[in-house]
This record gives sequence, structure tokens and C-alpha cells, in this order.
Amino acid sequence: MVHYSTTAIENMEKSFRVNFINSLSGFKSSNLVATVDKQGNPNLAMFSSAVHLGADPALMGLVSRPRSVERHSVENLLDTGLYSINHVNKKILKAAHQTAARYPREQSEFDATGLTAEYLEEFAVPVVAESQLNIVMKLVEAIPIEVNNTEFIIGEIKKVIVRGNVVNYDGFIDIEALGSVSLSGLDSYHETQRIGRLSYPKPDKEPRFIP
Amino acid sequence: MVHYSTTAIENMEKSFRVNFINSLSGFKSSNLVATVDKQGNPNLAMFSSAVHLGADPALMGLVSRPRSVERHSVENLLDTGLYSINHVNKKILKAAHQTAARYPREQSEFDATGLTAEYLEEFAVPVVAESQLNIVMKLVEAIPIEVNNTEFIIGEIKKVIVRGNVVNYDGFIDIEALGSVSLSGLDSYHETQRIGRLSYPKPDKEPRFIP
Repeated sequence: MVHYSTTAIENMEKSFRVNFINSLSGFKSSNLVATVDKQGNPNLAMFSSAVHLGADPALMGLVSRPRSVERHSVENLLDTGLYSINHVNKKILKAAHQTAARYPREQSEFDATGLTAEYLEEFAVPVVAESQLNIVMKLVEAIPIEVNNTEFIIGEIKKVIVRGNVVNYDGFIDIEALGSVSLSGLDSYHETQRIGRLSYPKPDKEPRFIP
Repeated sequence: MVHYSTTAIENMEKSFRVNFINSLSGFKSSNLVATVDKQGNPNLAMFSSAVHLGADPALMGLVSRPRSVERHSVENLLDTGLYSINHVNKKILKAAHQTAARYPREQSEFDATGLTAEYLEEFAVPVVAESQLNIVMKLVEAIPIEVNNTEFIIGEIKKVIVRGNVVNYDGFIDIEALGSVSLSGLDSYHETQRIGRLSYPKPDKEPRFIP
């Protein structure tokens, strides 16, 4: 057992600290966020911070990078009000990771990585054709997080595309069967193996695995 | 391939919709949040919304439930300014899930589920002894999310306990080796199997797996 005090954390070498702190929240989602700028040029970037916010209205959150660095995706979605969130699977893992390289603003990460921008009829923003689950989002609000100059970006779910027969009778989407991968730390990717679904918890009744 | 329009989502039966929308963000973290009320009575609850916010200062975020429901954990951490985040592993999975049952306010979920509240010298809030990774957090800010009456709770990492020899030379914590589990939807728990760590992405250089 190792204890890390506040002082120990503060004294960590920078890249050690980045790896360490990034590991603490647990397993993360792994998504590609697609946007377009005002001229319609597409952009694609990895996000590991997508989080469920509520089912009615149907909302998801994303954490932006600090305002001090270039943030093409965030600038685009603030400009246009639209973005898409696309699950990452094993086949597109390297391409997805590669979108995080520092490409110049005018370079589309779709072109750089070979991923395909697929346009739906109703929306100006593309989805990733090779992704097995696409969500088109409409910006609701970008809340400033003053303490570290980031933003919490809230969006409403406008359309969902599931590329597989994996929606259960009760609405649960089997994202493991879809091949969605999970992320830990900055750069570690994981497949999953279901332990089980547990029944709705009630006092004085032990939860059981749903067959 | 199945398309779900805004109308289709709005017309979903309530519990179907809750399962469906909860599946969309991808794999989630699975954590127990421990708090104490002003009298020192402990409380424990599952959260699947822990998210990395930044490494310097070392910050994490959590999404609260809506203000319209009882939220013992959130009220406690707003009152005391302290909480702990504890990874869930397979051995404590059922107990962890069970903390989400609607126990009365005066009932400690530690007692109800058999999990152990372990007190450190420096902090009034306990950690979960059976959890393999404990993080003591100090509240920084609770930002209201007006659109659905939830809050984004931001905290600073004050102490980390890692119960295993799993911190790599570069700071990466091998949470898979620790046995941390991942969650999808509302109630589906998953073990993980590492695909690999990918090298830092650079333009014009394909990422490779780090041995």
C-alpha cells in the first residue's frame, strides 16, 4: 500500500504527474468528437471525458482543454452549435489516437488518419463512418471552470446511430458487443468482458445478476 | 444500422429511455463516494460520473443527481467540503451496487452493505478499506447545471492510496491490475483486458504500442 500526500503529488515530475492523475478517475470513455468550422471544414479529436448528464432531456457533458492551448474542436462547436460523438473501437484505435497529434488548424484529421466523414441529411456536422455508434449533439451551454481555465460543455442528443443489432428489449445498448473500447490514464486502451448486469438495488434485498 | 431521431428518443418509454441514454457516453468509471454529515455519520454511494479535469492543480469532477431527489452524499460534501472517491473492484461489486438502494438518511450504507469505513489521521472523511484505490477530495466548487437541475462538483485531490504495486515508472497507474471495474449503461459491470498503451501522437508518425 502506498500513500501519496498532497506534497508528494505537488512534487511529482510533470509528465509523471500527468500520467498518475489521469489514471485516478477510473476507466474512461473513448470517443471521437467531430466538428466543422464556419466554412464547413471538418475536424476530429479524441475525448475521454464524455459523461452522462441526464435522460430527459437527453444530455451529455464533455470537458474541454484549457483556454491557453489551441482547441479547434471546441472553437468549432462553440461557433456552430453542433458536434458529433463517435465511439472508438479496436479497428480504428490507432487512427483515433492519432487525431490527438498537433495538426495545423487547416489540416482535417479525417484526411490525416483515413477516417471517413459521413454526412447525414439533417445536420451540417459529419459522423465517423467507421465508428459503430454515432451521436449528433446540439450545444446547450459551455460552463467556464475558472479554477483551471477549462469548460464543461453540455449538449443535447439529437440523433443516435447504432451500427449493429445490440439494443436490448429494455433499452440497454450492448456497447461491449459493438466493440467500444475503454481508456485508462492518457494512452492505455482496453477491451471489456462483461461480469454481468445487476438488478435494481433495493434496501434489504441483495442484488442479483440479470440473466 | 438503426437511426434514432429526436422524436424517436422523445417517444421512448421512460425506463427504456433511461437505459438507452445511459449507454451512450461509452464505458464509465465505477466509484464509491464516501462522505460524512455535520455530525460525522458516514454515507456511501455509487457514482459513475467521475471525470478527470486536470493534473495541475490535480482536479476531478462528479455529476450530482437532480436537486429534486434526496442526495445525501452531495448534501454532506457541500456541508463538510470533504469526500473520498474509491474504485470498485469485482469483490465488492454487489455491495457497491447495493449502496444505490434508497436507504433512509440515518442508515449508513457502510453498515447496510458490510463495507468498512477506514479513517486516516488527517481527514474527517473515511475511505473504503476494501477498495484498491482511494482518493481523498476537497471540494472546490459545485457548479449548477440549470438545464436539468444537477450540479458539476469539482474537487481537488488531497491524498491518494494505491493498494498494490501498480504505479509504473512513468506515473501510469495500472488500474486493470488493481482490478478496477468499468460500468456501462445503468447496471452493467465489466472487467477489462488491455489492448495496449499507444505512444504520444505526432503528425506524420503512426502511433505504436508501447511494450
